[in-house]
Amino acid sequence: MRDTFRVLTLNNIASEGLARFPRDRYEVGEEVANPHAILLRSHEMHGMEIPASLCAVARAGAGVNNIPVSKLSALGIPVFNAPGANANAVKELVIATILLAARNLAAAWDYVRGLEGTDEDIARAVEAGKKQFVGFELPGRTLGVIGLGAIGVEVANAALELGMNVIGYDPNITVERAWQLSSGVEQAADLDVLCSRAEILTSHVPFNDSTRGLLSRELLALLPKGAVVLNFAREGIVDKEALIAALDTGAISTYVTDFPSRLLIGHDNVICLPHLGASTREAEENSAVMAVENLREFLENGNIRRSVNFPEAVLRRTRPHRLVITNANVPNMVGQVSTALAEEGINIADLLNVSKDNVAHTLVDLDGPAGKETLQRIGSIDGILSIRVLPIIE
Amino acid sequence: MRDTFRVLTLNNIASEGLARFPRDRYEVGEEVANPHAILLRSHEMHGMEIPASLCAVARAGAGVNNIPVSKLSALGIPVFNAPGANANAVKELVIATILLAARNLAAAWDYVRGLEGTDEDIARAVEAGKKQFVGFELPGRTLGVIGLGAIGVEVANAALELGMNVIGYDPNITVERAWQLSSGVEQAADLDVLCSRAEILTSHVPFNDSTRGLLSRELLALLPKGAVVLNFAREGIVDKEALIAALDTGAISTYVTDFPSRLLIGHDNVICLPHLGASTREAEENSAVMAVENLREFLENGNIRRSVNFPEAVLRRTRPHRLVITNANVPNMVGQVSTALAEEGINIADLLNVSKDNVAHTLVDLDGPAGKETLQRIGSIDGILSIRVLPIIE
Repeated sequence: MRDTFRVLTLNNIASEGLARFPRDRYEVGEEVANPHAILLRSHEMHGMEIPASLCAVARAGAGVNNIPVSKLSALGIPVFNAPGANANAVKELVIATILLAARNLAAAWDYVRGLEGTDEDIARAVEAGKKQFVGFELPGRTLGVIGLGAIGVEVANAALELGMNVIGYDPNITVERAWQLSSGVEQAADLDVLCSRAEILTSHVPFNDSTRGLLSRELLALLPKGAVVLNFAREGIVDKEALIAALDTGAISTYVTDFPSRLLIGHDNVICLPHLGASTREAEENSAVMAVENLREFLENGNIRRSVNFPEAVLRRTRPHRLVITNANVPNMVGQVSTALAEEGINIADLLNVSKDNVAHTLVDLDGPAGKETLQRIGSIDGILSIRVLPIIE
Repeated sequence: MRDTFRVLTLNNIASEGLARFPRDRYEVGEEVANPHAILLRSHEMHGMEIPASLCAVARAGAGVNNIPVSKLSALGIPVFNAPGANANAVKELVIATILLAARNLAAAWDYVRGLEGTDEDIARAVEAGKKQFVGFELPGRTLGVIGLGAIGVEVANAALELGMNVIGYDPNITVERAWQLSSGVEQAADLDVLCSRAEILTSHVPFNDSTRGLLSRELLALLPKGAVVLNFAREGIVDKEALIAALDTGAISTYVTDFPSRLLIGHDNVICLPHLGASTREAEENSAVMAVENLREFLENGNIRRSVNFPEAVLRRTRPHRLVITNANVPNMVGQVSTALAEEGINIADLLNVSKDNVAHTLVDLDGPAGKETLQRIGSIDGILSIRVLPIIE
């Protein structure tokens, strides 16, 4: 009998994802004890006790603010996410709400719902009332996109297709995303330039210390008068007080956000949606499939793809015997590991050692099995966070 | 002093359009008496007395249901419209509301507006409530487009760009529109085929006897279960009773319409907008400019572009003296006109005679001015509806 992996789910996960766990090798469910892995969506993990058995956490989604990433890093546990799986879902919502704002659709719908009387009365009221909802069209308008990851790139390209001018900013754009980005998107030198031109502004950045309050009072003040601001990233990236002040004066005409709060819900010029950015069946399926694939690749092969706290680490497996070692990113770890193996007379066939910030991840393929003692010796090296012998592949 | 044209406006017309009337040659306003032309948007002209002085009517918009077209045709008066001027505005509204329906945004917005309590309460309610608004994404879904005029083509092309499959139907598509249509749009053999595949259905046809009740009970019954139906054309193209029955059973999941009525406003699965299809500043400007250009071209040169009841008739003017004749489309009209001119010894330099249905339009450029008597003789020919001597061009 082969080893079985135990996966604890903390949220409902789309069945298309769960179906990718082979039943004979995985035990998956909400009640699984001593899990090797945790699979979740928005469940709040901060404050949860981390099981000693845990090797990995995967989120079927992009943001990981509900996961205690640093704590897990310190334990040598990678956290995976599913970036891009929701990109089309968010893109479509951004396009929808740009148009919603441009055409005053929320208020217009509300107006119609208040109409009473005969069909003739209603028709007259419609023709009389429609004037107040006259909007604007997108061609020739300028959209500013802050953050050109999977979502930002999709939004920028789609806006171009709709005839908008698009100006983007992302000092950390990857080659992959830059490649995917239409060459028609103009590059902003900095956020000041971008904001001073963006008649419509949308941000697609992760939420962290460097993006907290990113849309500051100063940046918001640079927007052209009557600008539309969208926030489908995270609540905290905008200085809410400055935003509301700008909405009150009309400096900003409309704020569309996926993050409702008391002050915003009551505001005439704000459209709040209930965190629907990734709320499509497709995004849930894509995210679940991606998260499950991340987990399987790590549990079965030790390979790391799409982790927020670990380096990308993929070593093609040519031998049945693989060790997966996570260690602090300090000197001579590889030397100590290989010495320990050499002392048992085991040859290293392939080795990959990659690091990111304080964490290093090492994959070691051996010509034969390592003995328990050797493994214990490696595990006790100062700085080793975890060591795992993978099930032998057939 | 040159002749002055008098234009009566029956609605507010965008200033960008009005500015195109040269002030020294046009008197334009709401109180103009004995107008040569009427310029309007949605003003109801049925029942209005037609001034004897009237030569032309132009609508700054596409539909002409508010204009007594047959009556005007019988008087030899062309009716102009501005097709395509609103095409982008309608396209954007269609895309917006497809997404609105796909993502349940109207209900979601409503849900958030009902939330109360602290920001923490609201955040919890958002995460708990968002499940009910999970939607679907557009790529791979099939959009059916009935009517491939200026608007239908724009909608079809935009939906393709968003990754949809698009199937279109228009037995009368023009070469110009077919050219403009992306080759990725599939052609439906008939409406049955189109409706049996359209997960989302939108119609962009004029309203007339052949499109009244076009979306019949039979066609609606062919739609895939849970289809979304949009109507930004005209209220009467859909069998409303059959539609509501299909909404009640869930056969159709959502109806989005620009034409509210009592039964629809109260229905949970209907989103009514107050006739906003063309309600953008750009569409109003484009329509006004197009309508004014139509009128000027006709009043100053007798040329006909974008008329709903007259044939396209454009003759480059090489002589100062031009007659504009409208006549019933019966045999030998041109012969009688040229005979009358020949009898006065006036040479015809250029002549264009084109017809559409019961109306023929004739432009005659002369080498010299025709005398009053000759004009009267032509005017009295049986079947001549109107004759006009154009101001001499300088």
